[in-house]
Amino acid sequence: MTNQNKLWGRLTLPSEENFYNETLEMLDKLKADAIRDSDGTKLPDEIKDIEDVDIYTTYFTVRDINDFAEKNLDEAIRLYLSSEFKTATSESLEIDLLEDYYDEQIKIDYKSDYKKYWEVRDRTTGKVVDINDWTLDKDKVIIKTIPFHDYSVSFLAFGIWDPTQMYNYITNDWKDVPHHIPMDVRGEKTSKYVEEALEKWLIENPKTDIVRFTTFFYHFTLVFNKEAKEKYVDWFGYLHTVSPNALDKFEAQYGYRLSPEVFIDEGYYNSMYRKPSKEFLTYIDFESKFVAERAKRLVDLVHKYNKKAVMFLGDSWIGIEPFGKYFKEIGLDGVVGSVGDGITLRLISDIDTQMKEGRFLPYFFPDTFYEGNDPSIEARDNWIKARRALLRSPLDRIGYGGYLSLAYKFKDFTDYIANIADEYRLIYNKISEKIPKVSAKVAILNSWGEIRRWGSHIVAHGKRFKLAYSYMGLMEALSGMDVDVSFINFDDLKEKDLNEFDVIINAGDAYTAFSGADYFSDSKIIEKLRSYVYNGGGFIGVGDPSAYQKNGKFFQLRDVLGLDVECGFSQGRNKYFTKVEDSHFILEDVIGKIDYGEGKENVYAIDKDTRILDYYNEGVRMATRDYGKGRSFYMAGCPYSFQNTRIIKRAIMYVSHKEDELKKYFAESIYAEVAAFKGLDEYCIINNSNKDIETKVYDKDGNVKDLSLRLGEIKWIKE
Amino acid sequence: MTNQNKLWGRLTLPSEENFYNETLEMLDKLKADAIRDSDGTKLPDEIKDIEDVDIYTTYFTVRDINDFAEKNLDEAIRLYLSSEFKTATSESLEIDLLEDYYDEQIKIDYKSDYKKYWEVRDRTTGKVVDINDWTLDKDKVIIKTIPFHDYSVSFLAFGIWDPTQMYNYITNDWKDVPHHIPMDVRGEKTSKYVEEALEKWLIENPKTDIVRFTTFFYHFTLVFNKEAKEKYVDWFGYLHTVSPNALDKFEAQYGYRLSPEVFIDEGYYNSMYRKPSKEFLTYIDFESKFVAERAKRLVDLVHKYNKKAVMFLGDSWIGIEPFGKYFKEIGLDGVVGSVGDGITLRLISDIDTQMKEGRFLPYFFPDTFYEGNDPSIEARDNWIKARRALLRSPLDRIGYGGYLSLAYKFKDFTDYIANIADEYRLIYNKISEKIPKVSAKVAILNSWGEIRRWGSHIVAHGKRFKLAYSYMGLMEALSGMDVDVSFINFDDLKEKDLNEFDVIINAGDAYTAFSGADYFSDSKIIEKLRSYVYNGGGFIGVGDPSAYQKNGKFFQLRDVLGLDVECGFSQGRNKYFTKVEDSHFILEDVIGKIDYGEGKENVYAIDKDTRILDYYNEGVRMATRDYGKGRSFYMAGCPYSFQNTRIIKRAIMYVSHKEDELKKYFAESIYAEVAAFKGLDEYCIINNSNKDIETKVYDKDGNVKDLSLRLGEIKWIKE
Repeated sequence: MTNQNKLWGRLTLPSEENFYNETLEMLDKLKADAIRDSDGTKLPDEIKDIEDVDIYTTYFTVRDINDFAEKNLDEAIRLYLSSEFKTATSESLEIDLLEDYYDEQIKIDYKSDYKKYWEVRDRTTGKVVDINDWTLDKDKVIIKTIPFHDYSVSFLAFGIWDPTQMYNYITNDWKDVPHHIPMDVRGEKTSKYVEEALEKWLIENPKTDIVRFTTFFYHFTLVFNKEAKEKYVDWFGYLHTVSPNALDKFEAQYGYRLSPEVFIDEGYYNSMYRKPSKEFLTYIDFESKFVAERAKRLVDLVHKYNKKAVMFLGDSWIGIEPFGKYFKEIGLDGVVGSVGDGITLRLISDIDTQMKEGRFLPYFFPDTFYEGNDPSIEARDNWIKARRALLRSPLDRIGYGGYLSLAYKFKDFTDYIANIADEYRLIYNKISEKIPKVSAKVAILNSWGEIRRWGSHIVAHGKRFKLAYSYMGLMEALSGMDVDVSFINFDDLKEKDLNEFDVIINAGDAYTAFSGADYFSDSKIIEKLRSYVYNGGGFIGVGDPSAYQKNGKFFQLRDVLGLDVECGFSQGRNKYFTKVEDSHFILEDVIGKIDYGEGKENVYAIDKDTRILDYYNEGVRMATRDYGKGRSFYMAGCPYSFQNTRIIKRAIMYVSHKEDELKKYFAESIYAEVAAFKGLDEYCIINNSNKDIETKVYDKDGNVKDLSLRLGEIKWIKE
Repeated sequence: MTNQNKLWGRLTLPSEENFYNETLEMLDKLKADAIRDSDGTKLPDEIKDIEDVDIYTTYFTVRDINDFAEKNLDEAIRLYLSSEFKTATSESLEIDLLEDYYDEQIKIDYKSDYKKYWEVRDRTTGKVVDINDWTLDKDKVIIKTIPFHDYSVSFLAFGIWDPTQMYNYITNDWKDVPHHIPMDVRGEKTSKYVEEALEKWLIENPKTDIVRFTTFFYHFTLVFNKEAKEKYVDWFGYLHTVSPNALDKFEAQYGYRLSPEVFIDEGYYNSMYRKPSKEFLTYIDFESKFVAERAKRLVDLVHKYNKKAVMFLGDSWIGIEPFGKYFKEIGLDGVVGSVGDGITLRLISDIDTQMKEGRFLPYFFPDTFYEGNDPSIEARDNWIKARRALLRSPLDRIGYGGYLSLAYKFKDFTDYIANIADEYRLIYNKISEKIPKVSAKVAILNSWGEIRRWGSHIVAHGKRFKLAYSYMGLMEALSGMDVDVSFINFDDLKEKDLNEFDVIINAGDAYTAFSGADYFSDSKIIEKLRSYVYNGGGFIGVGDPSAYQKNGKFFQLRDVLGLDVECGFSQGRNKYFTKVEDSHFILEDVIGKIDYGEGKENVYAIDKDTRILDYYNEGVRMATRDYGKGRSFYMAGCPYSFQNTRIIKRAIMYVSHKEDELKKYFAESIYAEVAAFKGLDEYCIINNSNKDIETKVYDKDGNVKDLSLRLGEIKWIKE
């Protein structure tokens, strides 16, 4: 991974036992310079001796240590859970804590003082039930109740099965594999064991060049139900990090105690969509500082044995916070992550670390590599979706996973990924030390800000959710656009000089963390945003921007957007303003029906100064407005498409008064994009689509020429 | 109108000058017993002398008195208005009060102490601006502001044009007609004038039998904009009732002052969709008591001259409150109102007064009565839509309006309405003194209760609104169903023994007065409803029943409904329960696609005990659930249709455990309904559709026979 040659290597392949010669052949064909093991494969020893090829070895810190774990179950991972909400029908109620939990994963923690750490809540009033009014009887809590109030119990449980292993085990119907018990590194014995075990392992594995931590200590929240099906998932969830030890330490440090409700959060468990409480944000800070300090100890050990330490971003990664303030202190040599699209690429490539490696699709697994299927199609889709983001923020390496022996049988496929690898290396060679040119500086405003950089609207990594995709399309569009993207939260908003941004974007459903919920009842925030736009800033709202029903409006930036939402209360007020503009700069490249995804209804223009771009079923779906020297743009939803990407690009140029700059480094076809770089005497045009296209292309001065590009092609043009 | 013969008369026709013989002919043909004048027509004197025919004369109390009004403009109607919301961009802001008002309707009230009665509000914080921080300069208010806060001025204005006359004048492009200035009967001079003028008129109009007050004193809220277009309408709005006089009297009586905001209500002007404040409800009580007292004086005068007094329900009717506690005291002999459907029929027929008359469609106007058109179609549609409601709550008379001379030319039409009149009289003869049999007692629960009986979800009488029709369909269905319908508010809910109801219905959009808004943060209300259903009651929710985001749920009756709404926060929670029932009692008569109107999305079943009847696009649209001994039913929206009416009928029977009672007095076809009456030895079957049908019909014991009904036919069957 330290290779300075940019046109060779930079590629990691999986390998496996009894595949030595073919591995050599593939290394040569694909110019790969690293070999990794995978779940379920082991590397043949002889491969580890090949010169110029680095060996990555997966390393688990707190799982797959059952010999230790079984003797020290008191230090297994704990988590706060809520029972189901149950309604009392008399003055007493019995709640079965485990009614809908999977007994192979969850055990009640009887070891810690439950009267201290648990809580019973009246979920009709929201109040805590007095500790004298409930008792624990085995796995049931008996509560003295008010009839027809509903209640839940917030309790501590042990998580006795690593969620990723559990998921793979159940999904693949494994047999006779021991369940990995995940241990809590806050435990003294575990802490000691983890470090000793690593050192021992480092000594025993001299041929490993790179230790790939999968990941460190705390798994993202993943809880299964009684029937061993996924019950609750949150890729950013901190539930598995909680323990009496952590709570006590927090109290000692901050002088106050975190109630279980800080974690249970009415049963929403601090979903990313909930506006985070100050307590929860403080806890994230507390926990991520601890995780960084402990991870650093392991990384230091790796370095002591002259190996590199990289982290796989995705399993037990909670507390690592790659965009948080303690990450750099860990001293990692790099990160590896899975790339599904532009967003997930930038979740890796934007991390401030020396080496960023992306694992591309498809996995070399039988579900894709079967006779009659062409795995190159998935490879190409994945590559061209990621490539536009890679041009903005390059990965230092790419890689694949799975069974190399399987891919080996598909020669067309290995030919194709050899091409991808060459194309990637050529890009990397040209741009890795250059800064991409941008046409605008954009800030995404939500309740999280930089700590959830590119994490906006994610529920579970790589999965589509109905209330997410209409916003993630916007993020995906931005991930590969020639704009500089910042993520700011509402505290940043108050403190920052917003003039550093050309455009502020607020995108999300009403009352979620992403639109901002009750931050929009804070007049300081409204003042700052209005002032920013009035004085020339650009504002883009998607979905329910600034939504908070108060003071006679739903959109608190009603005046800036020139729009509000009819929620029933003002049906008696005539909505005269429905005339759609005949044409508009923002819509000039629209070629088909606009997809708003889930969209929004009942949005209306407040007066004639709002320029309506699309109106349907008594509602505005797209509009723009001048506000002082600034401008706003509204869109009811923005799932990912080439057309929506272009609309957003044009909207950014429009609201920042840069219409005249649009056709510089610009391709007219919505399927194509141009990327240029400071200090590089060539720029590239990419065809993001699966078809051959012709397009006008504009250079830096707006000189135009016609160009043909094959499906997925990239062309470099000298200035 | 006092005629006791039920098979003759009970019909009011319009007439006009120079139409004497034809009027006699029509009176005879239609067996009419009353003649009325209309807007723009006068009755020929000789008609007034016909025996056995009552003469209705329209009477305005506070409009069409310009000789008086012009000399006493200080007593013209006043109203509270809000300026537009304006954002300050510096430390001073000038708001043009009349920026978007129509100067022929609205004049600023400079006469009353504006520093006392007006208010400037910061609409970013919601706070009142100190009276020292603003000044009035002609029609502008200059405010000392916080930059980038928005402001509005709540001010008193004179309304110098009667809104109904204004509407007719502008709509019909009248010329040279003086604008009627509406006067405020709270003014001492006006009060005296109104009574004296009526007495004078009564003396001068001996041939009038029935004085038709159109209406009394205060018009519903109707305000036009700068361009003389409708700006704001609220058929229940109290805006025109406000005056310094009224405010001072209120203060004297209740010991506290009503702020302008009680009326301005963030600019929503107490729309029916807003949960009414205690202050506003107190004001309604205060005002309706006053109106009743004043109206009584006029009615007493009418009686003094041996005439009858009836009220037309619809124009200046505010404060009359036909379902309020002071209405009976007025002593009216009857009410007349316009019938568009079942709801509007019952808005009249359910009033506790001696004579209820419905004016049917079409008006005898040229827009319907032109060559080549068949006005009978509209007449039949109107009649059969109203008839099912009339069978539940009969009108004592029916009538028509417009130019009789126009209708006279359409012989087929007059033949047809002669049939309608006969059919009506036959119904009336059979049922007017009977009580309809009901299959269930139903309560509509909303923030208004009985005072807005059948007024639920109305914005402007007879107009369709996008956020209303999906609920008004439910009301329309109930208006003609064999159920007893009560309207209760949340105070009633707390006080009442709910066991008098078989079913409680909560229907409306989230946060509106109709679903209940923050009443659902009151644990007493939740307890009472849960207890009611648990102990055997039925609950039907339409749209967003019990919606209020709090304590981990959106539907506060989540447990009762077995449903909640995914608002983003719990996307990480798996929604396993999506299996749709193969069949269900409630759906047995469904023959086509179910129309949910605006519908609702992202509703999900909380567990396996919820029985899903319809699931679409990751959301439940219809479901039912057992809850203790009770049951609930949910429907995402219910615009009016025969099929939805049947679904609601079956749902009522189902949730009240009366499935076995369904097929008694029941027609299987969804186009038909059966009505039966206590003490009447026959029952009827009506065909509500415009086509001939065949249906199985069940008698009181469930004995079945096949029946054919022509389009719109009613058949009476002996028991």
